[in-house]
Amino acid sequence: MVDVAILGYGTVGSGVVEVLTTNKDSINKRAGKKINLKYVLDLRDFPGSPIEDILTKNYEDILNDPSVKVIAEVMGGVEPAYTFVKKALLSGKSVVTSNKELVARHGAELLKIARDKNINFLFEASVGGGIPIIRPLNQSLTADEIYEITGILNGTTNFILSKMADEGLDFETVLKEAQDKGYAERNPEADVEGFDACRKIAILSSLAFGMQVDFEDIYTEGITKISDIDMKYAKQLGYDIKLLATSKKKDEKVYAMVSPMMIGKDHPLSNVNGVFNAIFVKGNVIGDVMFYGKGAGKLPTASAVVADIVDAVKHLERNIVSFWSTKKMELMSVDNVLSRCFIRLEPKSIDMVHNQIKEIFGDVQYVKIDDKVDEIAFITDAFKEGILKEKINDLDTKNIASKVLSVIRIDK
Amino acid sequence: MVDVAILGYGTVGSGVVEVLTTNKDSINKRAGKKINLKYVLDLRDFPGSPIEDILTKNYEDILNDPSVKVIAEVMGGVEPAYTFVKKALLSGKSVVTSNKELVARHGAELLKIARDKNINFLFEASVGGGIPIIRPLNQSLTADEIYEITGILNGTTNFILSKMADEGLDFETVLKEAQDKGYAERNPEADVEGFDACRKIAILSSLAFGMQVDFEDIYTEGITKISDIDMKYAKQLGYDIKLLATSKKKDEKVYAMVSPMMIGKDHPLSNVNGVFNAIFVKGNVIGDVMFYGKGAGKLPTASAVVADIVDAVKHLERNIVSFWSTKKMELMSVDNVLSRCFIRLEPKSIDMVHNQIKEIFGDVQYVKIDDKVDEIAFITDAFKEGILKEKINDLDTKNIASKVLSVIRIDK
Repeated sequence: MVDVAILGYGTVGSGVVEVLTTNKDSINKRAGKKINLKYVLDLRDFPGSPIEDILTKNYEDILNDPSVKVIAEVMGGVEPAYTFVKKALLSGKSVVTSNKELVARHGAELLKIARDKNINFLFEASVGGGIPIIRPLNQSLTADEIYEITGILNGTTNFILSKMADEGLDFETVLKEAQDKGYAERNPEADVEGFDACRKIAILSSLAFGMQVDFEDIYTEGITKISDIDMKYAKQLGYDIKLLATSKKKDEKVYAMVSPMMIGKDHPLSNVNGVFNAIFVKGNVIGDVMFYGKGAGKLPTASAVVADIVDAVKHLERNIVSFWSTKKMELMSVDNVLSRCFIRLEPKSIDMVHNQIKEIFGDVQYVKIDDKVDEIAFITDAFKEGILKEKINDLDTKNIASKVLSVIRIDK
Repeated sequence: MVDVAILGYGTVGSGVVEVLTTNKDSINKRAGKKINLKYVLDLRDFPGSPIEDILTKNYEDILNDPSVKVIAEVMGGVEPAYTFVKKALLSGKSVVTSNKELVARHGAELLKIARDKNINFLFEASVGGGIPIIRPLNQSLTADEIYEITGILNGTTNFILSKMADEGLDFETVLKEAQDKGYAERNPEADVEGFDACRKIAILSSLAFGMQVDFEDIYTEGITKISDIDMKYAKQLGYDIKLLATSKKKDEKVYAMVSPMMIGKDHPLSNVNGVFNAIFVKGNVIGDVMFYGKGAGKLPTASAVVADIVDAVKHLERNIVSFWSTKKMELMSVDNVLSRCFIRLEPKSIDMVHNQIKEIFGDVQYVKIDDKVDEIAFITDAFKEGILKEKINDLDTKNIASKVLSVIRIDK
């Protein structure tokens, strides 16, 4: 028998309790030992709940109990999670977590402590909810040099974009519905501004490339500027608009970026709709592999947390090696990345605009939708991002556009 | 340093050598030890090849060398692979294999020997080529009760069906092209009759449900009867036709089946085209997850074999537990499975046929395509397979159809 503790009895924490109870027999069989939930830490009271008798408000109860070998941290946020987790690892207890902020910021350090102590720090649930991606990256794709990871890593924004595309609604309307349904937070910033996806691609990049990728260094753009009009143009072009988080290695240089992208119907991520997530990995021998599933939600996330508990119990005194060193990786500036763009603008002079655009961008592909006659939309060739930025700036400064309405990258 | 040997220098074997060479540094880092390829076993000569100096024609050289700790069996076929692998395991050497025939037939026994010897028998490459699926089933989805696995597990048939759908060609024409391109064997039976997919779903079912599922017990139907006309009807209905291998658990009973299926565009497998494979897994807490990638080919398969070599080297004297017992699972007869069908027939009497069909199947949904006026096609409600079989038989015996042209299941 192994005693475990859960820090936090919110959505994920109560899900973990539910999964441990529902699938008790098969989980114990898989772990090779009986898993006994001894404590749940939460500052709130839960009278009448199944964990009433094992609830504690004092972390020291757990930390000082030598029988507790594995702790599941599912509180979220950097503090006090970081302090709790670090203390646990230093005292020889393995930790599993669903906390992407914690892992993105302190993953390398916590992995190192676990390695030094010959125990484990596992975080399958921190990216892609229930989708197995951390363990496959660490243990299955070991024959490959990974050179690209691209994913739809945030279910809330994918739900919003899917619904905008399907029903022709605008961003604000769909966001409100997502909030009403509980798919989006009251303060939706972390999701819709891309911050959540940014932390997740930082974690995946650090694991795939073996060095610390700081999320602050990743170029990040959210979906708040995507309009129902953009969706109509995308449809006209046969594209979907998705919030993609990507990180690519070329000539030993890595860049990472989170931004809305237009992708073709033949792109494997174009069929990933609603709250589903998917992660696409490219290796130099395996080619393309993709992992798909529910990226969030109580039970899928709890499934990943419990799978990590099982792994921690199976490896109580044996570190499962991963290659995320504390050495910082200097990312390449996205200014040097080649991109094609979809651009929409209100022209100053409808007569001159085509010539003016040609002067700046060379030959472009124009797009028209029926109900927008007073604007101009086109797709550029591939330019370096830094140069594109200047060219788009020229549209303003050279008096070509009275307003640049949209700039959306195209995946090609 | 760990010495390893490869049995068989065919497509996969030479791929394994290539991967071990190309990604040597990162592989050794992942394994935590230098992997030294000491022998390659093959009866042929390979003068001038990179393995000329380590080639042996005598398996005893490898078996009797105590420095060899891990053997990769990539010969294919049951014998002599089975004898070689069993001897290796009994002598304390871990074995990794890409050989689905061997694993489907003897997996449970070989896993047991590995367990008893505290070494490993790993077979990631036997299903889905490079796609990580065996390790995720064993180690990631441990919190779940799996109740369904459905996959496109054969790249050759998926290539053929995708091409038939895209280009309106008939089966024979596309098969010939696949053979010319090397995607299909000269004797294509194992692929086109579904035998390959059958062995793979047997392996996945055994792992997911923890008991021996004999492939001989699995209802298996190939794609040789699918015509270009069927494809036209499918297109008309908004469906794709895919060869699906599926195994489902309900009320503690499991059934398994390989057959062509019509699936809707919103089915996650409908977008899996060409030589790609994908495996869909449903768990009681994780929900739906899918794994996607190249299901065959030299380097993707070699990537999975080498990942297993790395895992075997990391666990030289420690068994990685899996739950595939030698106890045989009695599968439920497919006669009791509910299916909807697409049926095409040449009617004896065009005047009476609609009434006759109604008498047998009740209300059906008729489908028409432009260039087929002399035949009748329809979709039935869901019936148990056993009853459907009788009803389809009635079309003959009750003189309704001069010929039943097609019967294709519909996934709903």
